[in-house]
Amino acid sequence: MANPSPGYSIQLRVEAPAGVTATSELVVTVADAGAVVTAVDVSESTGDRVLVDLTCYAASAEHAAQVAEALAAREGVIVHDVADRTFRLHAGGKLEIVPKTPLRNRDDLSRAYTPGVARVCLAIAEQQADARRLTVKGNTIAVVTDGSAVLGLGNIGALASIPVMEGKAALFKQFADVDAWPVALDTQDTEEIIRIVKALAPVYGGINLEDIAAPRCFEIERRLREELDIPVFHDDQHGTAIVTLAALVNALRLVGKRLPDVRIVVSGVGAAGSAIIQLLVAEGARDIVACSRTGAIHRGRAYDDPHRTWIAENTNRQGVHGTLAEVLVGADVFIGVSAPNLLGEAEIAAMAEGSIVFAMANPDPEVDPVVAARHAAVVATGRSDFPNQINNVLAFPGFFRGLLDAGAVDITPAMLVAAAEAIASCVGEDELNASFIIPSVFDPDVARVVAEAVVAAAHRTAPAQEESAA
Amino acid sequence: MANPSPGYSIQLRVEAPAGVTATSELVVTVADAGAVVTAVDVSESTGDRVLVDLTCYAASAEHAAQVAEALAAREGVIVHDVADRTFRLHAGGKLEIVPKTPLRNRDDLSRAYTPGVARVCLAIAEQQADARRLTVKGNTIAVVTDGSAVLGLGNIGALASIPVMEGKAALFKQFADVDAWPVALDTQDTEEIIRIVKALAPVYGGINLEDIAAPRCFEIERRLREELDIPVFHDDQHGTAIVTLAALVNALRLVGKRLPDVRIVVSGVGAAGSAIIQLLVAEGARDIVACSRTGAIHRGRAYDDPHRTWIAENTNRQGVHGTLAEVLVGADVFIGVSAPNLLGEAEIAAMAEGSIVFAMANPDPEVDPVVAARHAAVVATGRSDFPNQINNVLAFPGFFRGLLDAGAVDITPAMLVAAAEAIASCVGEDELNASFIIPSVFDPDVARVVAEAVVAAAHRTAPAQEESAA
Repeated sequence: MANPSPGYSIQLRVEAPAGVTATSELVVTVADAGAVVTAVDVSESTGDRVLVDLTCYAASAEHAAQVAEALAAREGVIVHDVADRTFRLHAGGKLEIVPKTPLRNRDDLSRAYTPGVARVCLAIAEQQADARRLTVKGNTIAVVTDGSAVLGLGNIGALASIPVMEGKAALFKQFADVDAWPVALDTQDTEEIIRIVKALAPVYGGINLEDIAAPRCFEIERRLREELDIPVFHDDQHGTAIVTLAALVNALRLVGKRLPDVRIVVSGVGAAGSAIIQLLVAEGARDIVACSRTGAIHRGRAYDDPHRTWIAENTNRQGVHGTLAEVLVGADVFIGVSAPNLLGEAEIAAMAEGSIVFAMANPDPEVDPVVAARHAAVVATGRSDFPNQINNVLAFPGFFRGLLDAGAVDITPAMLVAAAEAIASCVGEDELNASFIIPSVFDPDVARVVAEAVVAAAHRTAPAQEESAA
Repeated sequence: MANPSPGYSIQLRVEAPAGVTATSELVVTVADAGAVVTAVDVSESTGDRVLVDLTCYAASAEHAAQVAEALAAREGVIVHDVADRTFRLHAGGKLEIVPKTPLRNRDDLSRAYTPGVARVCLAIAEQQADARRLTVKGNTIAVVTDGSAVLGLGNIGALASIPVMEGKAALFKQFADVDAWPVALDTQDTEEIIRIVKALAPVYGGINLEDIAAPRCFEIERRLREELDIPVFHDDQHGTAIVTLAALVNALRLVGKRLPDVRIVVSGVGAAGSAIIQLLVAEGARDIVACSRTGAIHRGRAYDDPHRTWIAENTNRQGVHGTLAEVLVGADVFIGVSAPNLLGEAEIAAMAEGSIVFAMANPDPEVDPVVAARHAAVVATGRSDFPNQINNVLAFPGFFRGLLDAGAVDITPAMLVAAAEAIASCVGEDELNASFIIPSVFDPDVARVVAEAVVAAAHRTAPAQEESAA
């Protein structure tokens, strides 16, 4: 059975016979049923009865039902209500759209709406760049999906993807004060998506593509970057790549190796894998072997899609052939963005001394991290219940904060590298160890440091639009 | 010169020699320059100098500059800063997107985002109707424009239209707690707009079309109503029609006439005029003559567009021909949604006893309301500086509140009529007079009363989606 997790947090309203041990007996019952009790409140107490609100982590919906049954099976106990805290949090949606200044009277109305607003419209009509200053455009991005590759759930469609997009938008606001709006599109046609995002662009200062299946996501991103004058970022690619590079920078620091010297094996050449490989190359990695399901990608073989072709031409200089397990022998770094349980203890043991293992397949990693840690010097995963979580939340809020602050019109490789180094820099020399190569997602400095790095990179590469318009 | 108005409110920071009358002299100077002083604050005072923040209404940008010059021309006075309060209010945009519950810790994150969110996605994938309950869809509408007919400014494009759409969204939230998001589209192709709005629809519980030029707006509205399962409302049509009917109901009450008995002349057969005529017919008006620029629309003439054809077939039973002035002779009601200064005193005088004049062309009405009031029993305009402002703000917030509360999938004529009667009912018998036929836009009851009327109408006509899904 899975571990109890806050994703399955439930609240039970339970009535029980009063008594000195009444509450503690309920807690013990819940714990015996395998749940983790996180809060107990006696909300009402009469002479002979108590009403207790009991919050706990269950492991699944079925497990939550079992916990309630275990309580109800006790003599004299009545379970009045079982609230799923995750669903309760989602009731009514997770976002609201709020006026920054209230419209209390005629005077407010005359400025925020007619007739005053007409002058603001005319100012923008005359000087289009002023839209960044005088509308939401300057601080707002679209979180765009077609619902085709949502989390690990696959092609669940636009409607069912909305909770993820809302959650992402909430993270943008919470961590970096970026206003982000879910755009969940009821189409999975590449050209249609491109046309729609272009038509929507006036309101937004940036586009965050999210959970769009490969290879469609590549074409959509490429075309939108060419055809729009606002930055376009595919988080599943570049967000993952930034945080992976950040973790790798610190992991290499820890084991005393340098990026240009290490052999890196990447498992998975989808959206994330391709972007990671490109960023590693940009940062100076020279010995990368990428593996798909059919083994190492190498020169001399024809690949259908342009990404694999690019990988074949720009990695694997030694022309290694073979399965993932074969090419991993002697490698310094394993980066997995592929599928669960591809590797066992023997494969990790066969890596070089001081090996680094990033097993990021979700929810189950390429190799059991506990097993991997028996041989690897550093192990990271995508999961929150192991150390070193490679979590995109470390990158995307600050990254877009920086893009908006710089008035950036495009995203450059230099910005991606700068963001990765900024995240890495948030782990101090005295903090760095095998269980802490990457800051916590709740580290309050990360978003600001990333934003500043992106702004600096933007100013190094090209004068930003905002400046030229000012 | 135009009148000073809050739309041109400015704040001047002025330094002047100290003295008992220093501040009052500044105020007099501003008043003499023709501005209306609304606030004076002495923000700093030393032995011999005072720093005064002076807020006033100017009549135009040029006038604001003249006011500043008049102050600077005074001996010893320095104008440090002239802030345009309308532009200042727009800096950074007027909306923000805020998480309803903060994400403070791992526990919050696990519920609002991964892994907990996956269960919510799956629930919606299985039961699509749950999206209204578990996402922003249940309380959010899109304010959609192509920027082709913005206020009276014409085809200023998507980017320049955003301040209006933001203002509208702010009104939705402020007056009826409806979350509304600006969708300003960079295309003016009818089919493309229809396709885009359909693709965006998953996130929204309703569509408010706004400032889209006729005749494109008719086709877009018709098709979207057919092809979407959420209500589609074109405010320039139906919002105006609702408030016009509300005002007419009360005006007729005041003059003691009944809708089926009166002759109504409507000037203007664009988006607003067509919708008004249709709603009047639905409510039981039997004698309507509609006029375009070329005079009365009547049977027996061929009209290009389907709206005029419908009007020719469903109005003007007596087959009246002639100009607006000619057909207005003896009429009981004039409703103008056309162009400024079409009528003079003689034309109003020639109307029937107890005539009602709604001259709603913006910013300048079809007839000077002061002149019209010499003969008409009731006069209303679209302006906020005359009594009886016919303002859509009275309708759209409560109307959409009702649609969302009812989980409505479509808009029926019964809902429009119910909304109009609800607005009319907000003016009590004891309040009703020739200067008060319609409630103030700041009447806190209106939105709620309208919403309740719409919900009741929705339940009368068809079981709402929310109910059938519950």
